[in-house]
Amino acid sequence: MRIAIPLFDRFTALDAVGPYEVLKFLPDAEIVFVAEQAGPVRDVPKWLALTADAAFDDIDACDVLLVPGGPGARALLDDRPLLDWIRRMHETSAWTTSVCTGSLLLGAAGLLKGLSATTHWGAVDVLESFGATYTPERVVFQSEVVTAAGVSSGIDMALALVARLKDRTTAEAIQLAIEYDPQPPFDAGSPAKAPQAAKDLLKRKFP
Amino acid sequence: MRIAIPLFDRFTALDAVGPYEVLKFLPDAEIVFVAEQAGPVRDVPKWLALTADAAFDDIDACDVLLVPGGPGARALLDDRPLLDWIRRMHETSAWTTSVCTGSLLLGAAGLLKGLSATTHWGAVDVLESFGATYTPERVVFQSEVVTAAGVSSGIDMALALVARLKDRTTAEAIQLAIEYDPQPPFDAGSPAKAPQAAKDLLKRKFP
Repeated sequence: MRIAIPLFDRFTALDAVGPYEVLKFLPDAEIVFVAEQAGPVRDVPKWLALTADAAFDDIDACDVLLVPGGPGARALLDDRPLLDWIRRMHETSAWTTSVCTGSLLLGAAGLLKGLSATTHWGAVDVLESFGATYTPERVVFQSEVVTAAGVSSGIDMALALVARLKDRTTAEAIQLAIEYDPQPPFDAGSPAKAPQAAKDLLKRKFP
Repeated sequence: MRIAIPLFDRFTALDAVGPYEVLKFLPDAEIVFVAEQAGPVRDVPKWLALTADAAFDDIDACDVLLVPGGPGARALLDDRPLLDWIRRMHETSAWTTSVCTGSLLLGAAGLLKGLSATTHWGAVDVLESFGATYTPERVVFQSEVVTAAGVSSGIDMALALVARLKDRTTAEAIQLAIEYDPQPPFDAGSPAKAPQAAKDLLKRKFP
């Protein structure tokens, strides 16, 4: 089973690496990181580079497509090489998935029209501009299209996906392997839960 | 504030990238990935490479040291270049931290003697062989040494660390930014919670 993860300039690494770390335990998985050109791809603020081992032209089919988001996603909403490749992958994939603003790339590729979907809480308007209906859930399954909310939600999505690709016991074994027994020290992970001071600080520092 | 993250052959990417994605939001942070030699470093099963932008010899001090784990960690418990560098960093760091079996590297470097510490649930014996007392908690602060449990626990540790490095509101703002409102679809993230079938499968498939 081939799982393809596209990378692009200014992606968010945890969007890709969270689900990668779950899916790599699938017994018959082969995971490939892909970019317009093979080689290192930088995040923001350029302290981290992940290597794309293949170029878009090298990969013409996959079983699972997993599109991460990041600040760079919004700059690629009319990028033909990436969007054309996403559309081609969607023709062969059993599951087309996104994390965070990766959903905007699925939307820009025309794959979310008429579907319920989720995204990072700060990207709802853009998501809906592509004809999707925003659903404030952490993971949204819509037939073969799966979207996850912001950044860290990709871990939850990947575990749910493993249960469908394989079975629940395999997903539970992987959850145990990565000791995913989350205990956040604070309860501020969504706009509904975060204190106003945290929301104000985020807006001021990272508008 | 310089945060240094060492990489080594067969590391676990989420151990490093989870906390990285939190700490990179710190207003005055500068994060550098380091390895014995600069260049790409591969995980298991070699599908993912992160770039080390510096060699150990290039970095002679840091404010925060964050040591990831992974299958490769156990092969490095007498690796002089890595352990010597960890000891040198610990002399200057305000916080010396580990995720998963990164704690074994801190232990092998002699930094955990007489301290309480945590690690991946499957590495408790090795941890204690270095003179540490295993504490079955997700994050253990012991003066300036902080250890986290398996893989995904690094996110929890990093948020707790931000609250000490800066303040609680900053940690909450970052938690909101990465939408860390975990909703695992199953409740199998620790040996105490995982069904026996999942434990058996993990043992059989990934002994």
